Amino acid sequence: MSVLYDRVALIGLGLIASSMSHAMRRTGLTHEITGYAKSAETRQIARDLGLCDRVCDSAADAVAGADLVVLCVPVGAMAAVAAEIGPALKPGATVSDVGSVKRAVIDAVAPHLPDNVHFIPAHPIAGTEHSGPASGFAELFDDRFCIIVPVEGSDQAAVDQLTTLWRGMGSEVDVMEADHHDLVLSVTSHTPHLIAYTMVGVADDLSRVTDSEVIKFSAAGFRDFTRIAASDPVMWRDVFLNNKQATLQILGRFTEELFALQRAIRRDDGAHLEEYFTRTRAIRRSIIEAGQDTDAPDFGRSKVPGR
Amino acid sequence: MSVLYDRVALIGLGLIASSMSHAMRRTGLTHEITGYAKSAETRQIARDLGLCDRVCDSAADAVAGADLVVLCVPVGAMAAVAAEIGPALKPGATVSDVGSVKRAVIDAVAPHLPDNVHFIPAHPIAGTEHSGPASGFAELFDDRFCIIVPVEGSDQAAVDQLTTLWRGMGSEVDVMEADHHDLVLSVTSHTPHLIAYTMVGVADDLSRVTDSEVIKFSAAGFRDFTRIAASDPVMWRDVFLNNKQATLQILGRFTEELFALQRAIRRDDGAHLEEYFTRTRAIRRSIIEAGQDTDAPDFGRSKVPGR
Repeated sequence: MSVLYDRVALIGLGLIASSMSHAMRRTGLTHEITGYAKSAETRQIARDLGLCDRVCDSAADAVAGADLVVLCVPVGAMAAVAAEIGPALKPGATVSDVGSVKRAVIDAVAPHLPDNVHFIPAHPIAGTEHSGPASGFAELFDDRFCIIVPVEGSDQAAVDQLTTLWRGMGSEVDVMEADHHDLVLSVTSHTPHLIAYTMVGVADDLSRVTDSEVIKFSAAGFRDFTRIAASDPVMWRDVFLNNKQATLQILGRFTEELFALQRAIRRDDGAHLEEYFTRTRAIRRSIIEAGQDTDAPDFGRSKVPGR
Repeated sequence: MSVLYDRVALIGLGLIASSMSHAMRRTGLTHEITGYAKSAETRQIARDLGLCDRVCDSAADAVAGADLVVLCVPVGAMAAVAAEIGPALKPGATVSDVGSVKRAVIDAVAPHLPDNVHFIPAHPIAGTEHSGPASGFAELFDDRFCIIVPVEGSDQAAVDQLTTLWRGMGSEVDVMEADHHDLVLSVTSHTPHLIAYTMVGVADDLSRVTDSEVIKFSAAGFRDFTRIAASDPVMWRDVFLNNKQATLQILGRFTEELFALQRAIRRDDGAHLEEYFTRTRAIRRSIIEAGQDTDAPDFGRSKVPGR
């Protein structure tokens, strides 16, 4: 792969930024990576890991001269970072982000950018429950989707170049409109996270069932919820505050369905339950066929024979 | 390991029974395994796989002369199976089960058993989203808990022998009272499954988001729900119908908490969200420390460097 951007600046050095650094270096997509993180401790870890060619002590320093700037901070921090870097951006540079919400990021960032840069929001659909600069790895984006959300007037050549970068980091790329992105993600990500957080909180809070019992018997299903409920609290706080309408809409649908199932349980309506549970199996099969999960029983977590 | 029961009869030949067969044979815990399944197709698959030494065409035939009989059928089918095998049981035999609900199974099974057998309900906390006789494997119970639920008057020697069998199949064994079991499992298993089924159903049902979008972007969190929502529909229908009170109680707590989080989102109460999400992280850590899950990012589903 050839070099796509001479210099890339990563603002925020968590799981996504550190994985981008590894992924760009894997196939030589850039000559130089600069980085900045708000916390001095994170900057030091990034330096110790050699995550960037240069870790700078301000966001403005990190973006100076960069051909691509990627904002990898929590959604709630985007506006302040954009305001800080706006005056330091190189004319003609592309500014992108990796936020899980797109409409709010556009509203927060766009006003701070000069007219002579390209603003092209993006969202890689990849992650783990781990966070911080040491948690990244080059393969995070392999065979995962990255959604690019061009804004009005986005330059097609700049969009194409960013698309090529994400493909070079292993992703498949889709293009979507911001509001539709926020609705789709509220279904596939935001609401599931909120529900998982809720269930784990309920389990923690019951006086008649001890934490030790919850933990010992978690393999029965609960465990699957705890992985996503272990994700970064600040990132998720910002996601919900910034994708409020779609999240509340999907939550409304969710509670409506849950109440219907609850009523079926109360009224011994086994046919309703069985029909519902049968329908959901088909979705699981489609996800495996689409390569977005493995068919290994239990995700291969326990000792399972090779197959 | 020495032989614990000369002959073991498995009634119902799905994931749990087939895994028990593999696990008992792994260390020679029995001389002979007989089996029965209601469906002729399942019996034929079990014969083709050599899952049992003998697959019988009636449950009564399968239990004749067995020292241990394990009922591995959906909870709703337990009463009919118990009625059928009751007269055919060998005096002194132990009858156990693997049902996910214990009070309802005791009520359904106990009346059909003669006084000269030992009835010792049990519940291995292990499973995958796969079902049927071909889905079992010997390692399923390794390092997972099995809860034994002695009934009034259970013979201690018979309980000890069943405990030794489960340990021999790789499990750790806990003893619990039936109603407490049903409450604990409604928290760690039944309610999480219902919630996962609900979320997957909602996603399937939205007209503004296509199934194809849900599937493509499932890696963002939704995917974790689909595994448990792919579990056997009949088994789960029976679980909810037979653990109604505990499930409705935990669902009530769940919706109360969910509404509080929903209100925090609507009112921009970021502090409430962040505090809640921080608390749930600790539970995840405890589950990993207890060996009930792996710390591999993303469960090791994607290509992740060894660590």
